[in-house]
Amino acid sequence: MKERLKVGLIGLGRMGRVYAANLAHRVPNAQLCAAADVRAEVAEAFAAQYGIPRWYRNHHDLIDDKDIDAVVIVTPTSTHHDLVIECAKAGKAIFCEKPISLSLADAGEMLEVVKKAGVFFQIGFQRRFDSGYVEAKKKIEAGIIGTPVVLTATSRDPYPPPLEFCDTKASGGLIIDCGIHDFDLAQMYMGPVKSVFSVGGALAYPEMKSVGDIDNAIINMAFESGNLGVVHLSRNSVFGYDIRAEIWGTKGSLQIGYFRQTPILVMTKEGITHDVVPYFMERFESAYLAQIQDFVAKVQSGGEPSITGGDAVSALRVSLAATASWRESRPVEVASV
Amino acid sequence: MKERLKVGLIGLGRMGRVYAANLAHRVPNAQLCAAADVRAEVAEAFAAQYGIPRWYRNHHDLIDDKDIDAVVIVTPTSTHHDLVIECAKAGKAIFCEKPISLSLADAGEMLEVVKKAGVFFQIGFQRRFDSGYVEAKKKIEAGIIGTPVVLTATSRDPYPPPLEFCDTKASGGLIIDCGIHDFDLAQMYMGPVKSVFSVGGALAYPEMKSVGDIDNAIINMAFESGNLGVVHLSRNSVFGYDIRAEIWGTKGSLQIGYFRQTPILVMTKEGITHDVVPYFMERFESAYLAQIQDFVAKVQSGGEPSITGGDAVSALRVSLAATASWRESRPVEVASV
Amino acid sequence: MKERLKVGLIGLGRMGRVYAANLAHRVPNAQLCAAADVRAEVAEAFAAQYGIPRWYRNHHDLIDDKDIDAVVIVTPTSTHHDLVIECAKAGKAIFCEKPISLSLADAGEMLEVVKKAGVFFQIGFQRRFDSGYVEAKKKIEAGIIGTPVVLTATSRDPYPPPLEFCDTKASGGLIIDCGIHDFDLAQMYMGPVKSVFSVGGALAYPEMKSVGDIDNAIINMAFESGNLGVVHLSRNSVFGYDIRAEIWGTKGSLQIGYFRQTPILVMTKEGITHDVVPYFMERFESAYLAQIQDFVAKVQSGGEPSITGGDAVSALRVSLAATASWRESRPVEVASV
Amino acid sequence: MKERLKVGLIGLGRMGRVYAANLAHRVPNAQLCAAADVRAEVAEAFAAQYGIPRWYRNHHDLIDDKDIDAVVIVTPTSTHHDLVIECAKAGKAIFCEKPISLSLADAGEMLEVVKKAGVFFQIGFQRRFDSGYVEAKKKIEAGIIGTPVVLTATSRDPYPPPLEFCDTKASGGLIIDCGIHDFDLAQMYMGPVKSVFSVGGALAYPEMKSVGDIDNAIINMAFESGNLGVVHLSRNSVFGYDIRAEIWGTKGSLQIGYFRQTPILVMTKEGITHDVVPYFMERFESAYLAQIQDFVAKVQSGGEPSITGGDAVSALRVSLAATASWRESRPVEVASV
Repeated sequence: MKERLKVGLIGLGRMGRVYAANLAHRVPNAQLCAAADVRAEVAEAFAAQYGIPRWYRNHHDLIDDKDIDAVVIVTPTSTHHDLVIECAKAGKAIFCEKPISLSLADAGEMLEVVKKAGVFFQIGFQRRFDSGYVEAKKKIEAGIIGTPVVLTATSRDPYPPPLEFCDTKASGGLIIDCGIHDFDLAQMYMGPVKSVFSVGGALAYPEMKSVGDIDNAIINMAFESGNLGVVHLSRNSVFGYDIRAEIWGTKGSLQIGYFRQTPILVMTKEGITHDVVPYFMERFESAYLAQIQDFVAKVQSGGEPSITGGDAVSALRVSLAATASWRESRPVEVASV
Repeated sequence: MKERLKVGLIGLGRMGRVYAANLAHRVPNAQLCAAADVRAEVAEAFAAQYGIPRWYRNHHDLIDDKDIDAVVIVTPTSTHHDLVIECAKAGKAIFCEKPISLSLADAGEMLEVVKKAGVFFQIGFQRRFDSGYVEAKKKIEAGIIGTPVVLTATSRDPYPPPLEFCDTKASGGLIIDCGIHDFDLAQMYMGPVKSVFSVGGALAYPEMKSVGDIDNAIINMAFESGNLGVVHLSRNSVFGYDIRAEIWGTKGSLQIGYFRQTPILVMTKEGITHDVVPYFMERFESAYLAQIQDFVAKVQSGGEPSITGGDAVSALRVSLAATASWRESRPVEVASV
Repeated sequence: MKERLKVGLIGLGRMGRVYAANLAHRVPNAQLCAAADVRAEVAEAFAAQYGIPRWYRNHHDLIDDKDIDAVVIVTPTSTHHDLVIECAKAGKAIFCEKPISLSLADAGEMLEVVKKAGVFFQIGFQRRFDSGYVEAKKKIEAGIIGTPVVLTATSRDPYPPPLEFCDTKASGGLIIDCGIHDFDLAQMYMGPVKSVFSVGGALAYPEMKSVGDIDNAIINMAFESGNLGVVHLSRNSVFGYDIRAEIWGTKGSLQIGYFRQTPILVMTKEGITHDVVPYFMERFESAYLAQIQDFVAKVQSGGEPSITGGDAVSALRVSLAATASWRESRPVEVASV
Repeated sequence: MKERLKVGLIGLGRMGRVYAANLAHRVPNAQLCAAADVRAEVAEAFAAQYGIPRWYRNHHDLIDDKDIDAVVIVTPTSTHHDLVIECAKAGKAIFCEKPISLSLADAGEMLEVVKKAGVFFQIGFQRRFDSGYVEAKKKIEAGIIGTPVVLTATSRDPYPPPLEFCDTKASGGLIIDCGIHDFDLAQMYMGPVKSVFSVGGALAYPEMKSVGDIDNAIINMAFESGNLGVVHLSRNSVFGYDIRAEIWGTKGSLQIGYFRQTPILVMTKEGITHDVVPYFMERFESAYLAQIQDFVAKVQSGGEPSITGGDAVSALRVSLAATASWRESRPVEVASV
């Protein structure tokens, strides 16, 4: 058996648990050696729960830990810039949750440092590892639907994040926070986005206006190829988590996604009823696992990252253009932001 | 335009309305000329509603009506014997709702008279005209599923008939009344049934015992070919009408049927819900129409009936064997009844 | 039985057959008395096929026919203006297929004449009579999904119309010809559209550019209420006819539409397969019937039309704004066209 | 963190891999310490692959290993008797794959020794841990469907086992090998089976006759309560793995199971197609994990096993009765075997 990759994890919130559970138990060729969080008591309890040998309250200490090969960053977006740069300079392989940053300038600087340091850098867009999206890519490449000409995608959360998170300085707002996945996938399937036009509003949760955010947006896209797309984002899919995409080609179409979680139908006088995938951790459980397994395998094999810094910046750029379009009620060229 | 077939309708109950509406408005090459029912006021109102020129309280008068070419019989099963024989002797083309009779002796006599009279005789098994069952037959004949080896079928009513109808002298009981459709289809797809074994009970509506009937039965079948089948019959599909069949072949399978009536999904915190086909008139609306159009067309063209008296007797024989098996708790050879 | 409404039909093309078959056989309180088409041989054959007593090659003669109460107009859009005005002046009740016209000026003039003549005028938006759309309206009014905040709709044809029809002078182009249904429904569920932004292209059938038309468009909408919507139109849904809508509320969502036509699943090593609704006449067969039944009933009862001239103009105005937005690549206020 | 349960695994075939992967990586409170298989080279390679510290070619050595608390037995059924008895005498907690044995006498002896030794003993019926079956039980207990009166279940494998496994001395034949799951579930939901009647045949793979086995069987059941059930077993579900159950109550019904594996629909001129769950390891991946986690947790907490020896014997008894019924073409009382 090959030596296992020694991994440190920074950020022990909700997503941190997903990564910890996977790294601790389901990635045989990785060893989760250390975890860090500014809340010391969280870090300590977390390490105990997942059997992680070392914990730190200070991420500098984790990055200084010579016995760590790779760092997984699952912290608020505003911290990504400093953390990635510090990890790169320390020579660590880096996995960073999306979005890379809220600023193209910061992202550019991060990628420059990463490049100079020559470290492995992968961004987290877990949907690319979902069996549905993977299979869609294969089917398109096999010519099953001819040439793809239109992409429609929907990302609908079952409830809004806490207001403090919606603060657009923290999250970038709905179009970046939620839409960046769809923009990434749109470009993966259809090539670069040329221009966008967005409408949006705080329709179901008017209190979002107080922090400058919205709960619904529709963004249409013209790709550089001349093809078209649209993304609908929502925070009020109250029945469950609704992530779908359709790709329309000249010879056929693909529909990705599903609703039902538990394989049971209830049939009564009220009709036939089934439950729904509750949220992203259930929907993308396998994708998060496949993604971090892929990261570990690629670092070990010295391969190219499956999702590059360039991908991250490109999706961010579309998100920023779409946000600007919404704010300014006009079509925006992606190259202009 | 060809001369239209002049049709008389005997039996103006629930099913009579289905036939009247179709014959009056949706079979262009038929003319519904007369209707008969022992309840004079029903016959009169019915004729007015559907624009039928003549009505009779006495079916003899309708059968004597020289200006009628064909008679559609939609009366209680116990009257089929006399009506069919009288119509045959009067030289009318005959359409008779299922089951042909509750007795093989009676059925045999009916077919003999029909044969001697040389009249057209077709029995009503409307499912054979449903697009799903029709398509299944085509797919099997095209070899899509290889050789069919197992058939499973379910017929589940949303509620039981009135107790007086359940009286097994009137209806023959669940296995005949409801199951005869499935036995007919089973033999159409799989060839003759050799032996059956049935279990049954009044499980949801114990009051059925008082009239000797049951509300659930499971009948398994060995076909003469050695292949196998099973039918589940029920009167307590409280959520709606549930008619399905599956045919299992050596290279694939077919599933026939559907649940949803209205093309709408409701998605709330309670899950995703849709309605269900309420009952047979909604499920088989198109099949009833296609069936009577086929009858009219076949009479006019002088073709062979799509469903023969032999088919009717054969399905009855299986139904009787299955009923005997349930009563006697033993496997029964179909040829023995 | 009440006296039947005497109906004349102008326009004996593909849609004319739908109306003729319904009026001849399935609307008991209507009598299809006359049909007109400029192609005399078509009119004659058509009348014979549907048993229509009188036929005309000249629509003036049909409109002059004193024994006709109501006229159903199923001719090319460019003829609607003159026909409606002539019928109105002749005192006929009028049913006119969508769109009312390609010009707001013409439509305005038509409505003025209709109003002055005091005749019944109904426009054909058959989807409003589809059980799914009807049920959606009821569910919304019953508060099942709370307040609707977003509507997404898709109309995808299995193949493009002949190029000569795509000529935007004849059809108005994709966004009017195909999208007007969606704009009508959008306003029915969500209230008036305030502004639109469209992207479009001849992506699958580049030859459409030669006549100035496109085969795909995505139109997003801001409603006057502040709520949002999007419509995707396509001519290359090569697998079948794909008409869906989703309405997103504060307490739940509705999904309208279905794919499967024949109730059969084929299960082989290639996977599980079912067919698809081929085109609009199959998908909306019941809706077309319900619509014309409603027209006849409303004329006879003296009620208000279910879909008014105002509805027709309003949907046209949105379609024109959306077309202008596509041509000019800018958001367009509906009130400005 | 609590001391982890030290587990040994006997039997390193296809199922052994499922248990090894789960125990090695996904049951945090277990430690997979040793593995045994008569094929030394398999045992060695297996231990290396899953990082298992010790391996044995002789299961006696594993059972003698003092540093092992619990043994998981995944060997051919014919070896269960000796292995369980040896483990029990050595004081190990025991998890044994289904079926417990092919003989009621052997099973009885096993349970006696287990009881005398006072060790924990759990049988493997993984479907009981599938979210669909679990949820069905909850819904029934919550009264959602009223009183359950009929159960229908289907277990269809995508292809037959190798002929040498079909040898009924090794596997017990289709009705035991495949049906025992359904009989276990049937009794869990509906109470004890009173009598059975089976039909069966080697219909798709006639070569099975050479080893006395069949590839299709239909077994109907009368429960002691008077309620009814039916199980269809098949080895020729060539399109994929098809495991479903329906439970019919006085107020509603439940349908358990699903077909689609990858969340993607392919829509072309051939129709709409999706793939299918390939086989049991994909269908029940989560259930196998939950089952072994439950075993480990129950052993550690000192609780009662979720599935007892009594359950195992009871399901075996129904299987044997159903097999006898098929062989002898007569209804068989379960208590008589």
